[in-house]
Amino acid sequence: MSSRPSKELLAIPNPHPGREYQVRCESPEFTCVCPMTGQPDFATVRLAYVPGESIVELKSLKLYLWSYRDEGAFHEDVTNRILDDLVAAIAPRTMTVTTDWLVRGGIHTVVEASHP
Amino acid sequence: MSSRPSKELLAIPNPHPGREYQVRCESPEFTCVCPMTGQPDFATVRLAYVPGESIVELKSLKLYLWSYRDEGAFHEDVTNRILDDLVAAIAPRTMTVTTDWLVRGGIHTVVEASHP
Amino acid sequence: MSSRPSKELLAIPNPHPGREYQVRCESPEFTCVCPMTGQPDFATVRLAYVPGESIVELKSLKLYLWSYRDEGAFHEDVTNRILDDLVAAIAPRTMTVTTDWLVRGGIHTVVEASHP
Amino acid sequence: MSSRPSKELLAIPNPHPGREYQVRCESPEFTCVCPMTGQPDFATVRLAYVPGESIVELKSLKLYLWSYRDEGAFHEDVTNRILDDLVAAIAPRTMTVTTDWLVRGGIHTVVEASHP
Amino acid sequence: MSSRPSKELLAIPNPHPGREYQVRCESPEFTCVCPMTGQPDFATVRLAYVPGESIVELKSLKLYLWSYRDEGAFHEDVTNRILDDLVAAIAPRTMTVTTDWLVRGGIHTVVEASHP
Amino acid sequence: MSSRPSKELLAIPNPHPGREYQVRCESPEFTCVCPMTGQPDFATVRLAYVPGESIVELKSLKLYLWSYRDEGAFHEDVTNRILDDLVAAIAPRTMTVTTDWLVRGGIHTVVEASHP
Amino acid sequence: MSSRPSKELLAIPNPHPGREYQVRCESPEFTCVCPMTGQPDFATVRLAYVPGESIVELKSLKLYLWSYRDEGAFHEDVTNRILDDLVAAIAPRTMTVTTDWLVRGGIHTVVEASHP
Amino acid sequence: MSSRPSKELLAIPNPHPGREYQVRCESPEFTCVCPMTGQPDFATVRLAYVPGESIVELKSLKLYLWSYRDEGAFHEDVTNRILDDLVAAIAPRTMTVTTDWLVRGGIHTVVEASHP
Amino acid sequence: MSSRPSKELLAIPNPHPGREYQVRCESPEFTCVCPMTGQPDFATVRLAYVPGESIVELKSLKLYLWSYRDEGAFHEDVTNRILDDLVAAIAPRTMTVTTDWLVRGGIHTVVEASHP
Amino acid sequence: MSSRPSKELLAIPNPHPGREYQVRCESPEFTCVCPMTGQPDFATVRLAYVPGESIVELKSLKLYLWSYRDEGAFHEDVTNRILDDLVAAIAPRTMTVTTDWLVRGGIHTVVEASHP
Repeated sequence: MSSRPSKELLAIPNPHPGREYQVRCESPEFTCVCPMTGQPDFATVRLAYVPGESIVELKSLKLYLWSYRDEGAFHEDVTNRILDDLVAAIAPRTMTVTTDWLVRGGIHTVVEASHP
Repeated sequence: MSSRPSKELLAIPNPHPGREYQVRCESPEFTCVCPMTGQPDFATVRLAYVPGESIVELKSLKLYLWSYRDEGAFHEDVTNRILDDLVAAIAPRTMTVTTDWLVRGGIHTVVEASHP
Repeated sequence: MSSRPSKELLAIPNPHPGREYQVRCESPEFTCVCPMTGQPDFATVRLAYVPGESIVELKSLKLYLWSYRDEGAFHEDVTNRILDDLVAAIAPRTMTVTTDWLVRGGIHTVVEASHP
Repeated sequence: MSSRPSKELLAIPNPHPGREYQVRCESPEFTCVCPMTGQPDFATVRLAYVPGESIVELKSLKLYLWSYRDEGAFHEDVTNRILDDLVAAIAPRTMTVTTDWLVRGGIHTVVEASHP
Repeated sequence: MSSRPSKELLAIPNPHPGREYQVRCESPEFTCVCPMTGQPDFATVRLAYVPGESIVELKSLKLYLWSYRDEGAFHEDVTNRILDDLVAAIAPRTMTVTTDWLVRGGIHTVVEASHP
Repeated sequence: MSSRPSKELLAIPNPHPGREYQVRCESPEFTCVCPMTGQPDFATVRLAYVPGESIVELKSLKLYLWSYRDEGAFHEDVTNRILDDLVAAIAPRTMTVTTDWLVRGGIHTVVEASHP
Repeated sequence: MSSRPSKELLAIPNPHPGREYQVRCESPEFTCVCPMTGQPDFATVRLAYVPGESIVELKSLKLYLWSYRDEGAFHEDVTNRILDDLVAAIAPRTMTVTTDWLVRGGIHTVVEASHP
Repeated sequence: MSSRPSKELLAIPNPHPGREYQVRCESPEFTCVCPMTGQPDFATVRLAYVPGESIVELKSLKLYLWSYRDEGAFHEDVTNRILDDLVAAIAPRTMTVTTDWLVRGGIHTVVEASHP
Repeated sequence: MSSRPSKELLAIPNPHPGREYQVRCESPEFTCVCPMTGQPDFATVRLAYVPGESIVELKSLKLYLWSYRDEGAFHEDVTNRILDDLVAAIAPRTMTVTTDWLVRGGIHTVVEASHP
Repeated sequence: MSSRPSKELLAIPNPHPGREYQVRCESPEFTCVCPMTGQPDFATVRLAYVPGESIVELKSLKLYLWSYRDEGAFHEDVTNRILDDLVAAIAPRTMTVTTDWLVRGGIHTVVEASHP
């Protein structure tokens, strides 16, 4: 492989720190592994944030999401962990992370967590 | 049959009890029996809740919904009963249960109940 | 004919009168007659209510809506009359009636009335 | 009433009889009565035809469809009768009549008949 | 021509003046002329109002909208003029007029004005 | 219960046996039981046929589909059995049965069988 | 007005006359006048053609469609006239013109004519 | 080229400065260049504003958006710059600019900034 | 992990081998790795087949698709390999495999291969 | 800039040259310049082909489409040129190129050319 996933999220300076504006990102390319069954799970991840001094660099966000590919993760837990990692990396004024999971057992699940 | 439906909802510990976040589940696989006509009814069940100390385990939720398959149940009553059972099982901070029923007599019905 | 339309709406006891929950019904099968031209009009009727001591029985609702089939009725008037009749029948905590009419003269009309 | 429904379909001369072209009409405003239960049924009627010497006048088509409002009619029968009447009225090169009925007993039905 | 467009909007008595209810109308059949280029413009017009003592008669509304067919009118101006004329005609408790214009220069424009 | 499901499909005379026309029915209310896991499965059933001397009576079709509610049935098998039963009951000129199943194991399955 | 509609369709040389390829155009901006009632009608016009030696210049097509704004025209007639004019102007290998009209009298009409 | 893009936004007088009404514009024709990779980016730009003494002239808005075609611009930065330029040009009471970007690295991004 | 992906596709007997009927399966849960960049790719896999003596067992199909999770695979190649493996496993009368890939480099790609 | 557009399309070996299968690609990121007005045009480009000995490499396809960004090109001409260049590069068994252009002058245009 020519590149590797990373858990490092890159913070870059907010070009307009004086204004409260919103950034929304959505990726349908999230996959992890169910800690109960060992089988893969798939989700769309959405984030919406009002940046403070930093914004998240998109390529590092892609690699960060990729880093869950071989990890066991419960729906509720992984959503809160992504939020915690992003808040730690860029200290946004506000942020919401939403994960929208493909059907398991006939049930479609969405988890949504916000800071603060 | 290799498994049986159950009325027991399994509460598992909320991995992030310190944050108010929301979980939404939707299943189009709910069926019960009309107490008036004895004929089957079909609904999509949606729930949205902010967990307290517990979250609901998804497989037990599936079995719980399955347990209505042979029960007679009015639309308004079953919605409130599902809400009562889930509130009793996991004591959420807030919860809304919505049932969305296939057409009967040319009328499409939705019932939505919330706690508290 | 084996049954006849009726203007009587049947109130049945609310199985969970202690909780404020919402019932929504929608029927695309409403037709009446334009008092100006004598030609038929068609509408989808939607109602949303928070029941008090009673809920509306669905078959009587179907027959009630059917009873407008040969009546002349203006859009604005019939919407308020349906609301008045339903409020009189089941004394809901709140109720909204919406009628959504097929195009006449290139104009699509919706009327929405609420109690209280 | 200022006008009355009619079973007469008005044929008017085809302005371009030398070319095989198609006319398609669709009305969501068809209603008749179920001969079994006496209750109203509702359908969207679609017709598609290649005219011969005549085309159908649209106002007479509206009145013709209106004339079923108080008639008992089975889905399969009424579709073929509309086709027969239209073929008798305007002698098209080809014609298809489709009726698309609102749900009864949890079943959505469509009937499609063609001439020749 | 058997009828002519008119700038007169007909106010008819509100059949339920004691209740605050809403009427919404939408017509995709509005066209006027660009005062800059002399070329036709096309819009969908939507209005939503809570009537006072009067409601607007639908046929007069159709003729009123038709009366712009040969007039030059800027998007922002015509929206406010329609609102002014309707408010003058029926003195609604509240009213919103929205015009939604087909693309010009790769830009889709919507204008929305409210009274009071 | 006031009525019971039946495996009997009622054939009624085709009102227009001289014309080849098509009837299409669709019901989203089919459920049976997985023979492997004992868990319920859900499907939408569609049929399209050109009748011969008979058409299928809709209420008997509803009861027939209902009769699978407690039966174990594989997707491919049940589709062919419904086709066989309907062909035996009404001897259509042609018929297609399609079953469209809710997701199991992340896979959405459709089975389509035709006669002859 | 700074420009005027024209009935002249401008033919420009086909840049690839050796290949049979298709051009499709669609405009939702067609309006004419009903010859019976004098009231405006509105349609979307679609054309699809395989050019011969010429293609149609788009601005002249826009002005040509605009030229119907004040003309009385029946649905079936105007469709065939547009086809005749375009065939005369650019002599395509094949061409289809479709007009899709807004609802009149509860009926939505589409007319489709082809050359040759 | 017969015309050139411009960074000048033309303010024209608001025809109804006494009323707070909203103008919304949307263009799917925005493209600029990624400052990191030199590759083109594509976005839909939406703006919504309540005008003060001026409104923005649409042709100048088109040319203004066009002027980014060869400029390097980050998503977050360009959104704020468009807002700043529009606020400077027409001094609106309020304005929101939204940019909605085509997928890069599997991530769909939207940026939304408001004044004041 | 409680289970492991497998490259073995399980063939089970076709319950109706005498009839040519079609089975269609669709899974949005396919992921592999780009052999060029080492980054994950995501696709929806669709298959449609007319079975011979065997049908494919769904759980083994799920595990088979899962087995690509860590494999490098080009779009065109993997589609043909899935087709080859399925044809080898169940010897269908006909089969089509379609892979529908999430956007890479602004390009959405679909590959479709059939046997025979 | 770290990379540059190129008119070179890279042919890579078809991994399954013995089977007739189809590849479909779609990019909404095509822009060129109108030779008449000098203003930018925008299109979605779709291609569908059955490869011979080669398939087209996706990154080179992206750069090839990018190379039109500053070129003047008529809709009909550019579609045929893309087809000619792709046929020259990879010698497919069959290929269709479709360009779907954003609205100009109220007209939406699509051009579709095929080889052979």
